[in-house]
Amino acid sequence: MKLDQLVGERFKEKPSDCVIDSHALMIRGGYMKDMAKGLYSQYTPLKRICRKIETILREEMDGIGGQEVQFPVVLPASLWNESGRYESVGSELLRFTDRNGSKMLLGMTHEEAAVHLVRDYAKSYNNYPFMIYQIQTKFRDEARPRAGLIRVREFTMKDAYSFHTSQEDLERFYQVCYEAYNRIFARAGIPEVITVSSDSGMMGGNLAHEYMLLTPVGEDSIAICESCDYRANMEAAECIIENERDEKDEPLTKVHTPDIHTIEDICDFLHSALTKSCKAVVYQKNRTDDYVVVFIRGDLDVNETKLTNYLGEQIHPAVITSECGLNAGYIGPVGLTVAGDYTVVYDKSLCGTNNLSCGANEDEYHYTGLCMERDVPGAEYVDIAKITDGAICPKCGKKHISISRGIEVGNIFQLGTKYTKTMNMQYLDADGSSQYPIMGCYGIGIGRLAAAVCEAHHDEYGPVWPISIAPWQVHLCCLRADDTEAKACADKIYDELNRQHIEVIYDDRNVRPGVMFSDADLLGVPIRLVVSPRNMKESVVELSTRDKSVQEKIAVTDVIPAVEKLICHLKEQCGK
Amino acid sequence: MKLDQLVGERFKEKPSDCVIDSHALMIRGGYMKDMAKGLYSQYTPLKRICRKIETILREEMDGIGGQEVQFPVVLPASLWNESGRYESVGSELLRFTDRNGSKMLLGMTHEEAAVHLVRDYAKSYNNYPFMIYQIQTKFRDEARPRAGLIRVREFTMKDAYSFHTSQEDLERFYQVCYEAYNRIFARAGIPEVITVSSDSGMMGGNLAHEYMLLTPVGEDSIAICESCDYRANMEAAECIIENERDEKDEPLTKVHTPDIHTIEDICDFLHSALTKSCKAVVYQKNRTDDYVVVFIRGDLDVNETKLTNYLGEQIHPAVITSECGLNAGYIGPVGLTVAGDYTVVYDKSLCGTNNLSCGANEDEYHYTGLCMERDVPGAEYVDIAKITDGAICPKCGKKHISISRGIEVGNIFQLGTKYTKTMNMQYLDADGSSQYPIMGCYGIGIGRLAAAVCEAHHDEYGPVWPISIAPWQVHLCCLRADDTEAKACADKIYDELNRQHIEVIYDDRNVRPGVMFSDADLLGVPIRLVVSPRNMKESVVELSTRDKSVQEKIAVTDVIPAVEKLICHLKEQCGK
Repeated sequence: MKLDQLVGERFKEKPSDCVIDSHALMIRGGYMKDMAKGLYSQYTPLKRICRKIETILREEMDGIGGQEVQFPVVLPASLWNESGRYESVGSELLRFTDRNGSKMLLGMTHEEAAVHLVRDYAKSYNNYPFMIYQIQTKFRDEARPRAGLIRVREFTMKDAYSFHTSQEDLERFYQVCYEAYNRIFARAGIPEVITVSSDSGMMGGNLAHEYMLLTPVGEDSIAICESCDYRANMEAAECIIENERDEKDEPLTKVHTPDIHTIEDICDFLHSALTKSCKAVVYQKNRTDDYVVVFIRGDLDVNETKLTNYLGEQIHPAVITSECGLNAGYIGPVGLTVAGDYTVVYDKSLCGTNNLSCGANEDEYHYTGLCMERDVPGAEYVDIAKITDGAICPKCGKKHISISRGIEVGNIFQLGTKYTKTMNMQYLDADGSSQYPIMGCYGIGIGRLAAAVCEAHHDEYGPVWPISIAPWQVHLCCLRADDTEAKACADKIYDELNRQHIEVIYDDRNVRPGVMFSDADLLGVPIRLVVSPRNMKESVVELSTRDKSVQEKIAVTDVIPAVEKLICHLKEQCGK
Repeated sequence: MKLDQLVGERFKEKPSDCVIDSHALMIRGGYMKDMAKGLYSQYTPLKRICRKIETILREEMDGIGGQEVQFPVVLPASLWNESGRYESVGSELLRFTDRNGSKMLLGMTHEEAAVHLVRDYAKSYNNYPFMIYQIQTKFRDEARPRAGLIRVREFTMKDAYSFHTSQEDLERFYQVCYEAYNRIFARAGIPEVITVSSDSGMMGGNLAHEYMLLTPVGEDSIAICESCDYRANMEAAECIIENERDEKDEPLTKVHTPDIHTIEDICDFLHSALTKSCKAVVYQKNRTDDYVVVFIRGDLDVNETKLTNYLGEQIHPAVITSECGLNAGYIGPVGLTVAGDYTVVYDKSLCGTNNLSCGANEDEYHYTGLCMERDVPGAEYVDIAKITDGAICPKCGKKHISISRGIEVGNIFQLGTKYTKTMNMQYLDADGSSQYPIMGCYGIGIGRLAAAVCEAHHDEYGPVWPISIAPWQVHLCCLRADDTEAKACADKIYDELNRQHIEVIYDDRNVRPGVMFSDADLLGVPIRLVVSPRNMKESVVELSTRDKSVQEKIAVTDVIPAVEKLICHLKEQCGK
């Protein structure tokens, strides 16, 4: 198509609310427009990118035996009541009532819908295994949508669900899907995506992996071992602590500490290391508002995902009231009293430690000389600490953990029987006895993948789209469209490219070359052809790639074969 | 793919809640499953049909210069407040509140979203005309979802929006789109679709057409003239009345009519024709509950769409209370009193008539001898009657109107400046003065179109899909898959069809031929190949079409070319 007909604006100024490059470039390049917090409309270039990603997803899902289906976006609450998630999922699940007063919700994931679709069908072991998938709109009422398409409220997702009669068969298919995902990211132009172990969160089940594009602007933190192949989302990474213990236990001593409220302050005051302190972090359970008091070594932070998993319920940072019995700033494990039901959790970092400072549960007083075994007898220790840079690798045991940032571009989960049991999906096995099928699920967000590719492939002037997902294959510029000869030549190339079914965007506007090239940079089309009066004199056309790896002059008569050859070459780089 | 892996159930019994064939066949054939009222999940065969329809839609929209975009499903109420539709549309618009208390809605149409996307871009007359379209999920909270995919709550729709700088240009493009729509329906296998004038309803604007598939099970009524080309939705059809008038006016006479409550009863009682009576029909305005009393000739019915358009607001049948002053069963135009604000509307069928019977606004009394001019001086008459079979054609004037039923499979509207004005979208024309662009919009529901094609093309055993949208092109049956020779032959044909990229569903189950053929009938694939031990003896394969127009035996060696030739032939029938 012609650029002067392309709906959308392109401009130079970086919008002030864009914190990452892909967001800014997609706004500046006329890819999308925000309608409300976390809601975007897509212009044609982005829609074309997304459709190409969808085609890759369909080919790879069909290639491993997937069957495309479609579930509704709007789901009845009754379905999510079956699995228990209507109650258990937080306010990111958008619930509403229809005109007849029936409770409904907007699907943010479709495990329940998948079980609903197949539970009457798959009654015999003969029907297994199978995998269904859809590419459909989802809605997740994020508290803080941010970073353009990275974290939105409404998004299009490819979600797949597999059903099996044994854990072994699930694991076999999980591996098949794992490899398909690697192919998908390679074909989309980001083969550098890595897999990390992840927390299965609200999905239930055991084993889970996330596919991460490492980038400093990612919102996930990933623990990577530099010595072995250990890679895990910080949310899921086990924290191994080598606890140090002084030879001699000191006595527990109450110290007057006016105006000292934080663990850093008390360590400063006592000239002791943070590792020799016991910090309190207080939460409340979402369901009951009961208090949860966590004690952890002063230099470490609580991993709220691990804490939530340990407690089996959602939590939020506590509001400490005057009635609750907690002395904010002076909370410690000795002599702790809390009004009502409460839970105390000790992190493994405190196990066996001694001579720590901690709060004395009394205004303006701390203890020194806390010895866990002696002063908090019978405490159970669990791992709820965040792993840190330089920590011990849970796999190889070396202190080689580094923390990187990443964008999650896909995930795969082994769900087990969580949904089939709660929703009573059963089949008869070969012996005629009833069994619950075992499920896996596999997701990729289309818009987020597009943004991640942009994040990985751009320069200061715009995205550098891989040809596999680029909005067009060729960007044809006619400099000085008022020059009859140049215009005639460009028109002819345009017609010929269209005839060869090569996707071309043609800029024949009467604008300055600077405007033309900056627009071309923003559209990020991989192959560029420039026709100009100067080139006409030599009967050549400039052929280049957006990443500057190719820059050459081609005889006008050779343009089409040269473009075709270059397309083949660029496609090979994307593994297809 | 192989049929024994296809997820979904097929069965013989017609579900009791299916009132139309396409609904029953799509449930019986494993095309879809209902999840809640008006919400369906799609199995693979239907998903494949819908994707093929979407491809046709994309090709035709791109072919007339359309640019594919995408709007969110969830829209902010603020956007619909700009156009005024947040308030004016009824409870079919699903409104809800997000976690931050912002008012949101589920898009049932996207005029506001379209204006939002382009109003900053299209500031100069040079940017016009243009057309954007999307294929996206919509939600309409229907009071009475029914007839399977014909009237659902959630559906996928192709909706297009064009923007113009003059009414002439809109009309030019409207015609272009009109023809593209005709091509779409022809390619989908229902060239018999007709266009009818329609009411623009809540869309605003003037001229509108609907594309109708005529079928007795359709939910729309269409007035068709058998003498000229007049065709209109009954909602929009003008009702021309030849009012008869007796030569002599009789006096207005009060008659005691105990136990007579309907206009039919009073006419019986008086031995007069219904055409000599004046009937009252009472509504209330949705907004205020004010009464609207309509007087119309006794043999005619009120067209509520025309009444709504005349009043400029939504109405509902009245609840007549004891306080409202209306005497139910005895309401008439003479001496009518109603409490509060109220509106009286006289249909054109009463204009100039005399000697009618009507209510006397007093319990147990009617009048005879009502002469409109004499007894209701100054009444204004408007057309709010439903057109009837045998009525006068508004175009040619002959009494040749017949009423048919149809399914609306598409619509096109000339919207004018309703949305651009209310949402303040302006451009500078060539003279530098600000103007509001003129819009058109163009919709086709994908699922409803699939159901309409099924309704038009099926027999008692299943759908007969046109090859352009069929889930597969070839249905390969291997009778007696336990016969080594037959199985080897069928396997080879299956492999060869796949190699030629011919879409094939392969049934090699060990089931009775009856089961195999009834499943094939339910899937409705246009070309069928049957391999059997008996055919093997002659080295032939049976080749037939689902509609039985082709039934022949082909030498095994000639199967692939014969199938390819038949596919070409069937595609030509669909105009492509």
